Amino acid sequence: PKTKLPKVGTTIFSEMSQLAQATGAINLSQGFPDFDAPAALREQVALHINSGANQYAPMTGVPALREAIALKVERLYGHKPCMDTEVTVTSGATEALFAAISAVIGPGDEVILFDPCYDSYEPAIELNGGKAVHLPLDERDFSIDWNRLADAIGPRTRMIVINTPHNPTGSVLSSEDLERLASLVRDTDILLLGDEVYEHIVFDGATHQSLLCHAELARRSFVVSSFGKTYHATGWKVGYCIAPAPLSAEFRKVHQYLTFSTMTPAQLGLADFMRSTPQHYLELPAFYQAKRDLFRELLAPSRFGLSDAKGTYFQLADYGAISDLPDTEFAKWLTREAGVAAIPVSVFCQQPMQRKLVRFCFAKGEDTLREAAARLCRI
Amino acid sequence: PKTKLPKVGTTIFSEMSQLAQATGAINLSQGFPDFDAPAALREQVALHINSGANQYAPMTGVPALREAIALKVERLYGHKPCMDTEVTVTSGATEALFAAISAVIGPGDEVILFDPCYDSYEPAIELNGGKAVHLPLDERDFSIDWNRLADAIGPRTRMIVINTPHNPTGSVLSSEDLERLASLVRDTDILLLGDEVYEHIVFDGATHQSLLCHAELARRSFVVSSFGKTYHATGWKVGYCIAPAPLSAEFRKVHQYLTFSTMTPAQLGLADFMRSTPQHYLELPAFYQAKRDLFRELLAPSRFGLSDAKGTYFQLADYGAISDLPDTEFAKWLTREAGVAAIPVSVFCQQPMQRKLVRFCFAKGEDTLREAAARLCRI
Ligand SMILES: CSCCC(=O)C(=O)O
Ligand SMILES: CSCCC(=O)C(=O)O
Repeated sequence: PKTKLPKVGTTIFSEMSQLAQATGAINLSQGFPDFDAPAALREQVALHINSGANQYAPMTGVPALREAIALKVERLYGHKPCMDTEVTVTSGATEALFAAISAVIGPGDEVILFDPCYDSYEPAIELNGGKAVHLPLDERDFSIDWNRLADAIGPRTRMIVINTPHNPTGSVLSSEDLERLASLVRDTDILLLGDEVYEHIVFDGATHQSLLCHAELARRSFVVSSFGKTYHATGWKVGYCIAPAPLSAEFRKVHQYLTFSTMTPAQLGLADFMRSTPQHYLELPAFYQAKRDLFRELLAPSRFGLSDAKGTYFQLADYGAISDLPDTEFAKWLTREAGVAAIPVSVFCQQPMQRKLVRFCFAKGEDTLREAAARLCRI
Repeated sequence: PKTKLPKVGTTIFSEMSQLAQATGAINLSQGFPDFDAPAALREQVALHINSGANQYAPMTGVPALREAIALKVERLYGHKPCMDTEVTVTSGATEALFAAISAVIGPGDEVILFDPCYDSYEPAIELNGGKAVHLPLDERDFSIDWNRLADAIGPRTRMIVINTPHNPTGSVLSSEDLERLASLVRDTDILLLGDEVYEHIVFDGATHQSLLCHAELARRSFVVSSFGKTYHATGWKVGYCIAPAPLSAEFRKVHQYLTFSTMTPAQLGLADFMRSTPQHYLELPAFYQAKRDLFRELLAPSRFGLSDAKGTYFQLADYGAISDLPDTEFAKWLTREAGVAAIPVSVFCQQPMQRKLVRFCFAKGEDTLREAAARLCRI
């Protein structure tokens, strides 16, 4: 059949995870932990499975989970969304991103993305007849060039996707960044899509600057997060979207025909755990910072150049001193020859990058990080 | 914001379930059982949750589940799909339907639907820029008028949606129907979308006529099913799509950005259960036929006229002898005044129906069916 997504192949995450498995390499490619979700959370979900909570959840999500989300958001970002009209539970953040884009993007609409850019936004934009406009991040610190954004905004700009903490680069936006953004969209009807799935993973004492922190931005934003990333359960595929009531109404129209609802016992277990253990996500920065610091220290003797890693559980590494290979080939070579799988970064860019970069996931146990680093130091 | 889905409100299933809850009515509206998934299945899922299977499943589904699906399909329909290239696990049948439509429908494409028609197809078609063409089923026996279909097929026809066993009417297609369909699409490049989520619920000794039974049809079909319907676990949201490799490739391009993957431990538990208890779904026809027969017998003294119910767990009831109200109002009245929630059928039709019909779900325990029928006999 004629393809609707000519640019799309199998996502790089599947490709590299499969290669890692086939070659027995340590898999630092696709972003998931090699440790488990908290035992108390798993037990709660199992309990609900065994106590009859196995039929459809409400389309918007189970009330207890929407309430827990609203409370968390108020606590962290000083803005309390209405659980009935502004919070929607989704089958993972991926579904939330797709639904938000589908809810508002149509033929002729432009959506501004910053490269390197998570790979799911553009296919969603294309399937809806919209056009992705790619702006590069600064290749040294992966910051947004606000003047360039100002130039790129035009009459067809319908949405800007803001991903912070940023995958794959690990950069984070500051409150000054949000101010700049606010000044650019003020007096326009441009919408924002905040991909904040790593909201709880920011380092060095920084605070995550959610679009929800900024009232003027929150008013025009879909903000998406992921329980999989927060609770070490990427396989459960539970996420959510927060948006003002009129945007949430459009979001839900799509969501109800995209998946309708999300696994009931997983939602109930997450609600229990958020209520009983609200400190869990507060401990994530220290937990992952220790891993980041260890991994960086172990890689210090290697010939990789390490970028700043301010958030997410990813570390970018410049291999320019090691190889001239294009990054996709280097990543495959690294998997096969060094036994460590990584994600090439250029696949997330429309324009070729100057730097030669691969991404490592450090959401792994200490032994795994040590062994991976040892292998990486050998090359 | 300007809406992309002007015709869409909250789905009738949410609306009626909410009304049932608010009024304390017996909920025979939204289609889900009031009994639980098999204990062995629930235990398997819980076991996987507690043994570390909580990270991303492969995008296409866990191999064991795809293999179990392929084996079942071969056993029942004599056609063995390739688990690697033709079977994809999805986050419910809803996601599978949306992904299949998104994979192949674009601006200008027409999709033929038969009314009354499940409500998720048309929004998916519209979001993709396509156009739904509605043909009415015969109002007496809900059969497809094949001559009318022949007339409706035109150069823009890209897909026909075939739902058998049919929700909401309970009609089923025969092998002669499939032959007629084959003769109409032969020498065209029209695709088929088979919504077969009630494949295991057919009555009176009939055999489900899957599009997969018919080699000529299977070659151009996406066939969608649902573990939620089969295993009494509608809240888990696990389904699948079978399609020839080139169609599956397009399907997966969409699926990978729509949800990426589906809850790992649920998939693993389903795979275990399908392997250990393949007879479970073979017992479903007798199990649900007993419920159907009981419900019909209990309603015999009522003033409702009962349509034939050949498959699914729904019973259509004609209330023309009871009330002149439009069906949406009648369904609300019935919920409030008689204490039994039902689904109005006209919401699934583009053209007004002659008959006055509501749909009852009989996937309920005997006491519930008795009490509901007693209430319905009183009016
Ligand atoms: C949905 S698979 C990709 C996981 C992820 O977020 C990443 O590796 O960046
Ligand atoms: C997704 S809610 C609708 C459930 C269902 O299939 C029905 O009631 O027809």
